[in-house]
Amino acid sequence: MVQKAYRAQIFHLLDDPYLAGDAFEYFKDGLLVVEDGHVKAVGSYRKLGKTLRASTKISHYKNHLIMPGFIDTHIHFPQVDIIGSYGRQLMDWLKDYTFPAEAAFKDPKVCKETARFFIKELLRNGTTSALVFGSVHEGSAEALFAEAHNENMRLIAGKVLMDRGAPANILDGKDMGRAATKRLIKQWHGKDRLGYAITPRFAPTSTPEQLAMAGMLKAQYPDVHVHTHMCENKDEIKYVSELFPDAADYLDVYEKHGLVGDKTVLAHGVHLSASMCKRISASGAAISLCPTSNVFIGSGLFNLAQLRRHKVRHAFGTDIGGGTSFSLLTTMSAAYSVCQLRDLSLSSMDAFYMATLGGAKLLGMDTYVGNLEPGKEADFVVMDLKATPLIARRLKNIKRLKALMFAIMILGDDRMIAETFVMGTSVYKQ
Amino acid sequence: MVQKAYRAQIFHLLDDPYLAGDAFEYFKDGLLVVEDGHVKAVGSYRKLGKTLRASTKISHYKNHLIMPGFIDTHIHFPQVDIIGSYGRQLMDWLKDYTFPAEAAFKDPKVCKETARFFIKELLRNGTTSALVFGSVHEGSAEALFAEAHNENMRLIAGKVLMDRGAPANILDGKDMGRAATKRLIKQWHGKDRLGYAITPRFAPTSTPEQLAMAGMLKAQYPDVHVHTHMCENKDEIKYVSELFPDAADYLDVYEKHGLVGDKTVLAHGVHLSASMCKRISASGAAISLCPTSNVFIGSGLFNLAQLRRHKVRHAFGTDIGGGTSFSLLTTMSAAYSVCQLRDLSLSSMDAFYMATLGGAKLLGMDTYVGNLEPGKEADFVVMDLKATPLIARRLKNIKRLKALMFAIMILGDDRMIAETFVMGTSVYKQ
Repeated sequence: MVQKAYRAQIFHLLDDPYLAGDAFEYFKDGLLVVEDGHVKAVGSYRKLGKTLRASTKISHYKNHLIMPGFIDTHIHFPQVDIIGSYGRQLMDWLKDYTFPAEAAFKDPKVCKETARFFIKELLRNGTTSALVFGSVHEGSAEALFAEAHNENMRLIAGKVLMDRGAPANILDGKDMGRAATKRLIKQWHGKDRLGYAITPRFAPTSTPEQLAMAGMLKAQYPDVHVHTHMCENKDEIKYVSELFPDAADYLDVYEKHGLVGDKTVLAHGVHLSASMCKRISASGAAISLCPTSNVFIGSGLFNLAQLRRHKVRHAFGTDIGGGTSFSLLTTMSAAYSVCQLRDLSLSSMDAFYMATLGGAKLLGMDTYVGNLEPGKEADFVVMDLKATPLIARRLKNIKRLKALMFAIMILGDDRMIAETFVMGTSVYKQ
Repeated sequence: MVQKAYRAQIFHLLDDPYLAGDAFEYFKDGLLVVEDGHVKAVGSYRKLGKTLRASTKISHYKNHLIMPGFIDTHIHFPQVDIIGSYGRQLMDWLKDYTFPAEAAFKDPKVCKETARFFIKELLRNGTTSALVFGSVHEGSAEALFAEAHNENMRLIAGKVLMDRGAPANILDGKDMGRAATKRLIKQWHGKDRLGYAITPRFAPTSTPEQLAMAGMLKAQYPDVHVHTHMCENKDEIKYVSELFPDAADYLDVYEKHGLVGDKTVLAHGVHLSASMCKRISASGAAISLCPTSNVFIGSGLFNLAQLRRHKVRHAFGTDIGGGTSFSLLTTMSAAYSVCQLRDLSLSSMDAFYMATLGGAKLLGMDTYVGNLEPGKEADFVVMDLKATPLIARRLKNIKRLKALMFAIMILGDDRMIAETFVMGTSVYKQ
């Protein structure tokens, strides 16, 4: 069993700081000891340095900070090539950009090449786990799982289920996507670090029959996730109320079909009623907050205070391609602004929690990842505290950890990610 | 007279595209010819290449785009070291972060060192002209002018005028800042490419007497600018109405003291009444829109439709340190989101206009800079169209210029600035 050690500043969260107070550890001169892909120990270099085996090599990163890999709880792999498209809000965005882009994933070559780029881009941004939408094509999820498997990533994905409201060439056929979903679950769910999510895009693109089918699949495979969108945009919400006149509200559409439980991730939730919050909270489902997307496609400002009040679980998603950055740092910065515009100050500890351990909890992977506690899988990033002249100057003069982490989340981006490790293996180096 | 030539894609605006339609030029294989620091010619390489002197060396940038240098119409030089500070909205931001930071500029060494960094950072971000706030100290403006002069930049700045509402150590003395302002005007205004702006911070930190003094100075030196803040934040607006109970509104405070004219730049203007818009428009004054600041310190979403309706002149400012980025590209991206949240799509042409020629017009420097028309001073940037893997991939597949420029403004940041030229001299190279 090979032992490796990494010396740098080290930061991670042990619990939700919003509920548990200062639930973090920080070592100014820290050491992370990894054995067999797992964290063996984390602490101060002074204390842990002497416990190392004589043969252990220490990688020493000066002016760097080691922290857990980022976790992206909502992202679309087939939308890489529409990031930064102009002038649409949600329903037209889908029609004019998303659907044409996703149609290209009929071609296995496009799936493979894009999956490769996508996984590399996640790692380049320090994201070591994600919950990912494919396109409707079985091959899209297939290609993504294969690439994630190559990198040994802990990742959950699914092929989209759609059987109406989009061009015919990207709709599921007569069996409503059931067979493909079952094949993918059997092949990939639980394979090493991979997991499956049943993935109806959202209520407008599934018939009640397909939603019912999805609910039955979920009942059949209770340990897979459900991943969909909800209450992103006001026009969308209105449209859902017209499509499902018998439903009490948008959430009810999913509830009715057995799709809302503690493994359900609802992307966005920008516009939620108190009743929806209460029911989401009671079900154990979670909201993936996607601030760069919400402001870029003009969906609105999510209401963190409301989610907290109702104890609705939440974490961050980039929502590429509606979102504009793969970086969770950029996402945290955008979230801060969204909250400021609603007169709430999102602390650095809360934001880093949501982007790491909180994301892991939301995806049910906190037993394995999310922080650097001994026994966990060694997914971590090494951040360059001198990534730009401005960052170097600004961070140098900050003494308090919370202010330091705050400046990192506001000024940092993918440039700060000097190196990314998955299960103790370096998978990206700047 | 030395002739230099630069071959790359070339883009610039000739007029306001919102009013004048497609008022841009784009050369897929372009050539920019510079003589004696000025643009001699711009056009296609095929056509202009043959007109060069035999001795002229061509710098050929593949996968790069040349465009005019960016123009930042509102930025604070002494706030570099508070960028990304946590958890305050405007009035507390000033008290807790700005005022203590600015107090340090009593020390000429701080002034000089920070001015050096600040000017370098502007150039690193491709910003070749700016309208800049100093601190209350004469030495701050002094140091800034000296550094800008070293780089031969076209830049306007001023020492802040403040005589109340801040700690005593950063208030003007008995003469209310008159003597220092006059000295600075005499020494720097019109010196090569420099200009002066009379710079009362904003109504809450000047007594009516100081505002009257500022107005008299403006009357005495009619060709200097006036640079201040207005209607950034709702609490601020309320506070001004309490401080100036006799004023009809915030703008009236400045109008009464002769501070609103066609050389006045009012930063922010997030919350304006129709009456204020009409009067600003009639006066020829202008609004500097600072979206990264407005969302970061939670001031609100500016109303571009309203400004357009009333023909109020406007361009972009970064508002460092309330703003979070020196990059006008990042500022344009933030502006797009602010507009999307108000259901308006800001086109790439409009945004690039505001960040270049529009900014130059706003600062009264469009005779000299803002685009690459023959005769203008050769302030330009060379942008790397492969700055990141994502940018390279995304831009490669875009065929339409407007979509290309849009993706640049959404995905780009300081990394895209490969080289910056001031008066034909390379002043920054990545």
